[in-house]
Amino acid sequence: MGSSSNGVAPNNNVDKGVDYANYFCTYAFLYHQKEMLSDRVRMEAYYNAIFQNKHHFTGKTVLDVGTGSGILAIWSAQAGAKKVYAVEATKMAEHARELVKTNGVEHVVEVIEGSMEDVTLPEKVDVIISEWMGYFLLRESMFDSVICARDRWLNPDGIMYPSHARMWVAPIRSGLVDQKKIDYDRTMDDWSHFVDETKTFYGVDMGSLTKPFTDEQRKYYLETSLWNNLHPNQVIGKPAVIKEIDCLTASVNDILSLQANISSIITAENTRFCGFGGWFDVHFRGRKENPAKHEIELTTAPSEDLGTHWGQQVFLLYPSIRVSQGDNMSVNFLMNRSKENHRLLEVEFDCELRQSSGKSLQSFSKKFYIE
Amino acid sequence: MGSSSNGVAPNNNVDKGVDYANYFCTYAFLYHQKEMLSDRVRMEAYYNAIFQNKHHFTGKTVLDVGTGSGILAIWSAQAGAKKVYAVEATKMAEHARELVKTNGVEHVVEVIEGSMEDVTLPEKVDVIISEWMGYFLLRESMFDSVICARDRWLNPDGIMYPSHARMWVAPIRSGLVDQKKIDYDRTMDDWSHFVDETKTFYGVDMGSLTKPFTDEQRKYYLETSLWNNLHPNQVIGKPAVIKEIDCLTASVNDILSLQANISSIITAENTRFCGFGGWFDVHFRGRKENPAKHEIELTTAPSEDLGTHWGQQVFLLYPSIRVSQGDNMSVNFLMNRSKENHRLLEVEFDCELRQSSGKSLQSFSKKFYIE
Repeated sequence: MGSSSNGVAPNNNVDKGVDYANYFCTYAFLYHQKEMLSDRVRMEAYYNAIFQNKHHFTGKTVLDVGTGSGILAIWSAQAGAKKVYAVEATKMAEHARELVKTNGVEHVVEVIEGSMEDVTLPEKVDVIISEWMGYFLLRESMFDSVICARDRWLNPDGIMYPSHARMWVAPIRSGLVDQKKIDYDRTMDDWSHFVDETKTFYGVDMGSLTKPFTDEQRKYYLETSLWNNLHPNQVIGKPAVIKEIDCLTASVNDILSLQANISSIITAENTRFCGFGGWFDVHFRGRKENPAKHEIELTTAPSEDLGTHWGQQVFLLYPSIRVSQGDNMSVNFLMNRSKENHRLLEVEFDCELRQSSGKSLQSFSKKFYIE
Repeated sequence: MGSSSNGVAPNNNVDKGVDYANYFCTYAFLYHQKEMLSDRVRMEAYYNAIFQNKHHFTGKTVLDVGTGSGILAIWSAQAGAKKVYAVEATKMAEHARELVKTNGVEHVVEVIEGSMEDVTLPEKVDVIISEWMGYFLLRESMFDSVICARDRWLNPDGIMYPSHARMWVAPIRSGLVDQKKIDYDRTMDDWSHFVDETKTFYGVDMGSLTKPFTDEQRKYYLETSLWNNLHPNQVIGKPAVIKEIDCLTASVNDILSLQANISSIITAENTRFCGFGGWFDVHFRGRKENPAKHEIELTTAPSEDLGTHWGQQVFLLYPSIRVSQGDNMSVNFLMNRSKENHRLLEVEFDCELRQSSGKSLQSFSKKFYIE
């Protein structure tokens, strides 16, 4: 197992078989790789980041963490890299190897099947490139593996692609609140009939399960974040940054537990505050001693036509709250990893709403699960 | 780990954490338990089997393998059992314990959380009751755990509930063939555009992935069995039994690998032979020395209004084959467990179609995955 700079065991000591069953197995499917490769915003950003900054690649040694189909490794080779190590944990590595060959870069790109924490490279590298971002940036906790790779294999003056990442939240409006509430109500109504019928026809009283069933369904319908492609006009207040990451220096400890105090002013006229949208952006800036010639940004902010496969994560409130332009909120945001599965997250929003006059409107605290 | 009568390790030496991630975890959800408890055909069959055969339960000791919510254990107690051991591998056991209490049978029913292969009971039992059947009977391979329980814990003159099980297949017609073919074609067409665009815009030729992508999508759309609720008029030939199981004597070896030669005559007029439907039935007959007073059958055969949550498993052919009334087929049926996951299955149909005159029409061989 690889070392890590802060003593936290990579992959949080999770059993490899369980981690595969819960997480890695999806990445072994070509269909899933194709979905990501068909994301034009994602592809454009990485393509431009590499080919508009060839000076970072030409004659250099590169490590691609989680190469998948091999695309970033192949581009790195095409941009003139001297050597590329492309590490992939799943059998997708076999397909990457094939692609490397048919695209004529097998003399440069070496595909290694294995987990980043376990593999040994023959040398340190000048560049670590990786597309590690999950929903709301940190879902999947793949950045842990990038940190591990950096700490083991990056030259002291090496650079990270991307170099920086930020997480954003904003208050939003969304029709999903109505939909989920209807689904939840229908499920609870159905449960009620079920309890009656089971008692009547089968002589067993399931009433003592009503509380745990309600908790289970509430968590599923009302407290789990949703994937959504928000339209910019659903963002009803100024977005705020809740986390900034320097990929060159961040440690796993820095991302285990997040906390941020932010504020946002409602910019939409008389509207429904239905909850929060969360998204991220990453930047390719190189490093101070060796900057990018062309800085590229990959953003997953709500967009009319530049949506990505990440969408945004949506955290909904029941009931939603009527707000007016100028109302403002201060929000304490918390995020931790799920105890049952380190690749999943739990977040909390503690929110105080005030009118522009300063008069208190409402406060609430709500916990969500990112599954 | 428990013993087994034929030397095959229970659960096929699968890692418990992986088995939980792949299989058991669904059963920890109340929503899933409710789905099964809302299956009226299933509930009626077990309810009637027990209460119309109280002589098998009154004053007796019972083991419920995979008790889930505890329903069968509670019914057994209500039918007069002296003692019921209700074993459940997931945290659902806590809910079962609660239900046992609120239904006033806690002096009889002892809920034990653990896997059947691991738990130790204080005594042997007179009855083993279990609802272990998966899609097409054997998906989930839960019967292995029932066999293990029987070999360890059933008294020499004890009885099994259910006592017998049968698997059936029949030729069918189904509009799903058209739907799945359209989905498959669309995916392949989309792939073709994807390869062109990735080459044009991003300079990487993904053409060498076309074959593995095709294999992956063919398996997914065309070679994986589907859950369906067949209408009886979709059954176009006489159904045939491909496996009979005596739950008192069957070994794991008996169900590891199935093979059967069957024949079926087309009963529908000029129609499309689209593939096979597979289903099962179980019976509650007691045993020769101690028979049921009222034999109950639970069938999952295609039915207009008595469908179950099991539906049937549908194995589709591309293209479908035009057949006439009186045409007949001889089919060699094979079934094995998936190497990657012992709870999933692979089947093969080797089929020879003839006209009623004896003239050969067509033969084919097709393999399917039950995922």
